[in-house]
Amino acid sequence: MQRDLKFNQIDGGITAVDGFLASGVASGIKKKAQLDLAIIYADKPCTVAGLFTKNSFCAAPLLLNKKHLKKGNGRAIIVNSGNANAYTGKQGMADAKAMAVETALILNIPTESVYVASTGVISEALPIKKILTALPSLSSSLSKEGGKRAAEAIITTDTFLKETAFEGKIGQRTVRIGGIAKGSGMIHPNMATMLAFLTSNVAMDKGLLQEALSEAVDASFHRITIDGDTSTNDMVLLFANGEKKYTIKTKGLLYRRFVALLKITCLSLAKMLVKDGEGATKMVEISISGAKNDKSADAIGFSIAKSLLVKTAFFGEDANWGRIVAAIGNSGIKVSPSEIDLYFGPIQLVSKGVYLGKAVEKEVTAYLKNKELLLRLSLQSGLGKALIWTTDLSLDYVKINALYRT
Amino acid sequence: MQRDLKFNQIDGGITAVDGFLASGVASGIKKKAQLDLAIIYADKPCTVAGLFTKNSFCAAPLLLNKKHLKKGNGRAIIVNSGNANAYTGKQGMADAKAMAVETALILNIPTESVYVASTGVISEALPIKKILTALPSLSSSLSKEGGKRAAEAIITTDTFLKETAFEGKIGQRTVRIGGIAKGSGMIHPNMATMLAFLTSNVAMDKGLLQEALSEAVDASFHRITIDGDTSTNDMVLLFANGEKKYTIKTKGLLYRRFVALLKITCLSLAKMLVKDGEGATKMVEISISGAKNDKSADAIGFSIAKSLLVKTAFFGEDANWGRIVAAIGNSGIKVSPSEIDLYFGPIQLVSKGVYLGKAVEKEVTAYLKNKELLLRLSLQSGLGKALIWTTDLSLDYVKINALYRT
Repeated sequence: MQRDLKFNQIDGGITAVDGFLASGVASGIKKKAQLDLAIIYADKPCTVAGLFTKNSFCAAPLLLNKKHLKKGNGRAIIVNSGNANAYTGKQGMADAKAMAVETALILNIPTESVYVASTGVISEALPIKKILTALPSLSSSLSKEGGKRAAEAIITTDTFLKETAFEGKIGQRTVRIGGIAKGSGMIHPNMATMLAFLTSNVAMDKGLLQEALSEAVDASFHRITIDGDTSTNDMVLLFANGEKKYTIKTKGLLYRRFVALLKITCLSLAKMLVKDGEGATKMVEISISGAKNDKSADAIGFSIAKSLLVKTAFFGEDANWGRIVAAIGNSGIKVSPSEIDLYFGPIQLVSKGVYLGKAVEKEVTAYLKNKELLLRLSLQSGLGKALIWTTDLSLDYVKINALYRT
Repeated sequence: MQRDLKFNQIDGGITAVDGFLASGVASGIKKKAQLDLAIIYADKPCTVAGLFTKNSFCAAPLLLNKKHLKKGNGRAIIVNSGNANAYTGKQGMADAKAMAVETALILNIPTESVYVASTGVISEALPIKKILTALPSLSSSLSKEGGKRAAEAIITTDTFLKETAFEGKIGQRTVRIGGIAKGSGMIHPNMATMLAFLTSNVAMDKGLLQEALSEAVDASFHRITIDGDTSTNDMVLLFANGEKKYTIKTKGLLYRRFVALLKITCLSLAKMLVKDGEGATKMVEISISGAKNDKSADAIGFSIAKSLLVKTAFFGEDANWGRIVAAIGNSGIKVSPSEIDLYFGPIQLVSKGVYLGKAVEKEVTAYLKNKELLLRLSLQSGLGKALIWTTDLSLDYVKINALYRT
């Protein structure tokens, strides 16, 4: 049945999967009584997969999670926003541990089954007392409906909460994946200030689940860039609470279906991060094809996606293809001008390296007024391709980041 | 005599060296009758050294110059601003050649002794007729005083013209170096949209002169960054018209003195480029010491210098040292938090990884109101050091680049 092969977006976010509850409260870290403390709870032990920032100053909670990931199963994720608990030394580590210990005590689960995440300002001491004081009311308000409050409690400068869920038949069973995420500065491959938490009813052993998560993240969160910076706090965690009937044992067809479902879920969240990039007024999908190989395509695509001159041109709705060409040339990949076909959405502006004229450019200029843009570069060097998502660089980006702490 | 070892800044720019004349006119490429065509002329054949962009789409004039550089001596540099003659295909190459041929004819010098440069908008056809029409009046107005007009004619979005000259005793002789340059977007190591022309009365063979220029540029133009982009048109050319008495034959003491003089001249121009970076309100000198080696120091320094979050914090006069730490962690170099000493000008804010408190931060915030800032990072890993100059990232940067062509 063809219909069954499709994946469907469903309601419910992180708690769309049976067995998961969540909640969010205002603990007083953020001003104005905004939600700033979230919890995700699994009613039975989960297999956990995790990916962590490559920034060499890994924040305290991530160091703790890496330890917990080696030990056993997962039961809860406790997350605060407003303070990153990063570059906070021994006290930071003690605070991260205290968050895990107290959460475990209240929920009567093992400490090493609790994962901790923090996001916000770097290098200021975590207001741990506020967090510990709020933990009882946070735990007692756990519910299916609390997923949205959790999604809201983890955001910082984000302008909207980010949640999604998908389901699809994998073999005879309907597998679900739910997720929430937060952006919105420092988004870049290798997971800048970005948190994503995912739940699923699949049953896989730890190694295989970790491989699946790596594959899905490489095709989603690692393909977005906003300002090229990476942060000390980013992570993706996937909790799988599956019963036997949802078991995937080998890297066969069922595994590939699950990775596809996971990719769709991650990409759905990743695109929300881009749309909500700090100050972003446009989301730009950059599609490269015909490069020598995928690595070359990536290098060219990211060179375009990260160029400040290209990004400011998108903000100015300026069909400045010269800057795109300069960015291609700046990628380190050898490209002959005569093999460049460049499209803005459906409109081709450059054919085999030749500019198609002012009349066409006028069409492109009109197209650039859209909020979601597609830039397509087709080369003739091979079969390499890449898809990357980026934003424009706006006046608001500078305003937000020049004044973040004040 | 100690005094003789010093180098002195002198008046005169590109024509401070005897035997060089220059001029600038308005040929009509730019609107509003601004100067847009410059010439630098040597009254005798010069040894030439040159460095060119590493962007793989090298603009037509650069391809021509590379050929001329292989052939022989130099007599003139003809430069237009307002149009980069880049990504302009065969017609672009023909136009660049026409500029050389016509200049050679008018000045009665060999075509291959004429070097060509263009800067401005990429990928639009060069208005070659306007240039050729203006060549006779340009050539007939050559003079010693024309250096300043030449400096003015090569700028694009620059807000001030950039010229400098130094002299100093090298052995028994007083050697002079004069120079002009233009920025101001896309400044980055490997010479983004940046032109610099230098003259000297030294006499060196081509290979040695080229080595000296490489050394000097590595310590100056390659150590500045504004927006991380590189362009298709950048180059540095050095014309040396020296008589026998100014001869430097080997890489001994005289050579080292000359390289030092050349470095000072290049650095003087490079700092002007940073100060005039598009929309820049601050120039920030980043000094790294105690890194494992110079390469590590460079990686850390450039990671800080290029971070949009650090640059916007400087614009906001925000002592956001957390972002600096994140940028260090993002450099790919392993650094232990406990070895970080961080100074803003004379004020230490972080000692052995420990933040020195709000009172000190207040001093730093006051210091950040200065236009020229020093950020000093001292590590304990080795003897590696680096000096890098960057700008803040301002609202005007975005405004200028979003609206450049309109």
